[in-house]
Amino acid sequence: MPKDAPLIKIQGTKSRGAKVIFYDRKTENREEIGRSLAKKYNLLIIPPYEDKYIIAGQGTIGLEIIKQIRKFDLKPDKILVPTGGGGLIAGISIAVKKNYKKIDLYAVEPQKFADYSQSLKSMKIIKNNINNTSICDSLLAIEPGKLTFNINSRLLKKGLTVTDRQVLKAINYAYKNLGLIIEPGGAVALAAILNNKTDIKKKTVIAVLSGSNIDPLILKNAII
Amino acid sequence: MPKDAPLIKIQGTKSRGAKVIFYDRKTENREEIGRSLAKKYNLLIIPPYEDKYIIAGQGTIGLEIIKQIRKFDLKPDKILVPTGGGGLIAGISIAVKKNYKKIDLYAVEPQKFADYSQSLKSMKIIKNNINNTSICDSLLAIEPGKLTFNINSRLLKKGLTVTDRQVLKAINYAYKNLGLIIEPGGAVALAAILNNKTDIKKKTVIAVLSGSNIDPLILKNAII
Repeated sequence: MPKDAPLIKIQGTKSRGAKVIFYDRKTENREEIGRSLAKKYNLLIIPPYEDKYIIAGQGTIGLEIIKQIRKFDLKPDKILVPTGGGGLIAGISIAVKKNYKKIDLYAVEPQKFADYSQSLKSMKIIKNNINNTSICDSLLAIEPGKLTFNINSRLLKKGLTVTDRQVLKAINYAYKNLGLIIEPGGAVALAAILNNKTDIKKKTVIAVLSGSNIDPLILKNAII
Repeated sequence: MPKDAPLIKIQGTKSRGAKVIFYDRKTENREEIGRSLAKKYNLLIIPPYEDKYIIAGQGTIGLEIIKQIRKFDLKPDKILVPTGGGGLIAGISIAVKKNYKKIDLYAVEPQKFADYSQSLKSMKIIKNNINNTSICDSLLAIEPGKLTFNINSRLLKKGLTVTDRQVLKAINYAYKNLGLIIEPGGAVALAAILNNKTDIKKKTVIAVLSGSNIDPLILKNAII
């Protein structure tokens, strides 16, 4: 885990029996560390997004979306998905686009980690500035995955970005109106809707809200 | 609503278009106020617990419990339910006892609102001290309902009580481990389990966690 991972994630992982090894986002490469550990201890690596089975697994959220769309007999116009490395939205896109060809999918990112937004715009992989920070710790991939970008560059409409302040407000909104605790990275799609980052008038819009590993200090800051 | 209702409940109700009328818990009677308003404006009263249809409606949680028990092929030993007026646990008891005769049901209350615990012990309705307070605003009925006690005195095992401090810790536990925001009144059953108020060793225990109308200040206090 990066050294600056939220305490709740570190403690939660340790409490389930794991040994946590830390690295520095700016000076170390987690894939290299992972490969070296896997070799040394004969371990299997489960990559967070750059893997067809992971993408397929995350795509089951797309199947859930389709199930709910059908249950409520809706005609969906847009789907907004929190995006870091791009695995979640790649899986969802494949599942949803197969059934609803006209639906528009939006990758939502923290403003300072807009690699997907920029990469989609210029149709080539663009990296974030390595010195940027955001409270959205689960979306801090430095660039789109090759495999995920190959899928997403064909299936997505575009990227949308939100500020950390907008994310905090979305977390408060979800707490007050939905009875949900969402971690910052999981709240970006809701934040994009609340801040009119895309036109939602008279449209059926689906937002993925996912993950509740929120640091107590950030949660305390968000709720007002 | 009582004057000391949580702000989030008051604002939430108003934001959905309601006119909120306040009363003093200690000096006024909400049933009387309700009857008088209903007469004046020709309104229908939906009582919070003392009504067979309300009890039946709340009993659908019992049906959900049975569905989940069967899905996971469990043999349930105990069910713990947050209890104020006793409607929720009455409905759950009827549903569950019909299918699982040996299951033990526990009414869980704030320590200073132990009217059900005491009433069950002495098999007659006992009131709380009207000057008592608790953060569990949804469980502050002053005594068991007549209809609910008639059901519960036959179907429940006993009452359990928890302190406000234990409730705060349960709210924090639910946030950290379950990704749920629970209001104080909805966290008492979990608090009872976390504080060994009943033996759970090698038993299958079900706790009802219900409601997320938690005041921001109390939530901020709870999460650590």
